[in-house]
Amino acid sequence: MILSGREVASAVKKELSSRTAEFLEKYGRRPLLAVILAGNNPASLTYVSGKQKACDETGIDHRDFFFDADVSRQTLVQTIKELNEDKSVDGILVQLPLPNHEDEELIINTIAPEKDVDGFTPSNVGKLLLGQIGHEDLVACTPKGILRMLDYYKICTDSKNICILGRSNIVGKPMAALLMQRDRNATVTVCHSLTDNIVPHVKIADIVISAVGKPGIVTADMIKEGAVIIDVGMNRIPDSSKKSGYRLTGDVDYQSCLEKASAITPVPGGVGPMTIAMLMENTVIAAFRNR
Amino acid sequence: MILSGREVASAVKKELSSRTAEFLEKYGRRPLLAVILAGNNPASLTYVSGKQKACDETGIDHRDFFFDADVSRQTLVQTIKELNEDKSVDGILVQLPLPNHEDEELIINTIAPEKDVDGFTPSNVGKLLLGQIGHEDLVACTPKGILRMLDYYKICTDSKNICILGRSNIVGKPMAALLMQRDRNATVTVCHSLTDNIVPHVKIADIVISAVGKPGIVTADMIKEGAVIIDVGMNRIPDSSKKSGYRLTGDVDYQSCLEKASAITPVPGGVGPMTIAMLMENTVIAAFRNR
Repeated sequence: MILSGREVASAVKKELSSRTAEFLEKYGRRPLLAVILAGNNPASLTYVSGKQKACDETGIDHRDFFFDADVSRQTLVQTIKELNEDKSVDGILVQLPLPNHEDEELIINTIAPEKDVDGFTPSNVGKLLLGQIGHEDLVACTPKGILRMLDYYKICTDSKNICILGRSNIVGKPMAALLMQRDRNATVTVCHSLTDNIVPHVKIADIVISAVGKPGIVTADMIKEGAVIIDVGMNRIPDSSKKSGYRLTGDVDYQSCLEKASAITPVPGGVGPMTIAMLMENTVIAAFRNR
Repeated sequence: MILSGREVASAVKKELSSRTAEFLEKYGRRPLLAVILAGNNPASLTYVSGKQKACDETGIDHRDFFFDADVSRQTLVQTIKELNEDKSVDGILVQLPLPNHEDEELIINTIAPEKDVDGFTPSNVGKLLLGQIGHEDLVACTPKGILRMLDYYKICTDSKNICILGRSNIVGKPMAALLMQRDRNATVTVCHSLTDNIVPHVKIADIVISAVGKPGIVTADMIKEGAVIIDVGMNRIPDSSKKSGYRLTGDVDYQSCLEKASAITPVPGGVGPMTIAMLMENTVIAAFRNR
């Protein structure tokens, strides 16, 4: 089975459209997402334009704050502080990576937790690990989207061995935190670049979630027959036959795994659309909750 | 090798004594820990008296707030709010479990993060999972104590497979969060009561950390030759030959594992003393940091 994030995201966005219409009717305006981008990293530009498009599709307004790559930390902090106070702003998104990586922690931690639609601030992440998450809480978009996709395709995580490859703050860690809670009950292993050998961990896994950014790191010979394979990788491979000059590929050797897995996400069209749909959902949640 | 938490804790407490003396000289008073206890759960009474004793040993004052089991949620919240504001109070400890379990989340989340010497509030837990932890941050005492003990005995976690049994907010989850960071680099698996089968996870582990509260759940036949075994279990077994009427035992079948393991913690005298020592250390950290 191919898990179509595009299909699930489309269903999510359809439902969101009616919620934003309800919001408009009730409060006389649409939910508003503030989008902060610094520099012109090509991948970031692509992500941001995808998010803007999804806003348009779901009836969310966006206000864009685009800065040069050399924008100062102070300017970003000040911008966020003003957006925190601005009652017409429901969600604040800072597109990562920032040109100055070292500033990311400070910048993200400046976002008011109730407008943190990416779910990256310490108190939101802490609630997630502590299992203090309800429907109104803001959970990191990629992990949340993966769970939504599993639910849509009726793939249960209870008592399953789940191997996560990658320990980023954006995917690996919040994914692990969500899956070990009492409503998911997975037995979670988190592997990373310094894992001695990923093979025994992948081999035992009922579900493999790869988010390391290495094309072909997961191959058919290392997965269990019938495993579910979730590919979070978004790797740009130079390809002169493409107009853009590159093609997108995941972490998983898709063709070989397709036969052995019971379910697998394609790249593109798998996890990516879910991440964006969850960002929209978080914005709508924040808009209603902060009223 | 037997990992003596008693020995490591004693070294920690000795160093803390000189830091509290320095604090006294500098600020004219000792660091102060507020201890909140509700009801008279025998284990809680034992823990609290152990913590009070450790305060005395390390030059920390404690102010005790003991309530009946039927104390209202409002009273506890109000007490904590006053302690948050009180500049003479450096740390606030709420002894868990509370008689009314359902109140625990609200009560703990009322503690100001900078006085949260147990490291249980969402923002402190979030920083821990995000890897935003420095020497001045307040980290959950049992996981912190286990790492300190491993360091003392020069047991490295880099690229090691570590199996954690138990997913509590107090031990299992923060332990996993600490070990997967870039300064520890462990490959972490978290098992729990709904894990399909713990054996393959334990078998592959270089370090096993058991915190489930089930005597004898870890036996020699399931561990790897030379594994390091950390026993967080504190189980009270009825024993009429003891004055107290019970004896303490861990989760691990100590006698059988002692021969096969390369290192093991005893119960009592292993993790327990480290937890208390780290509570003292967190109180001293909070006292200096909040000045």
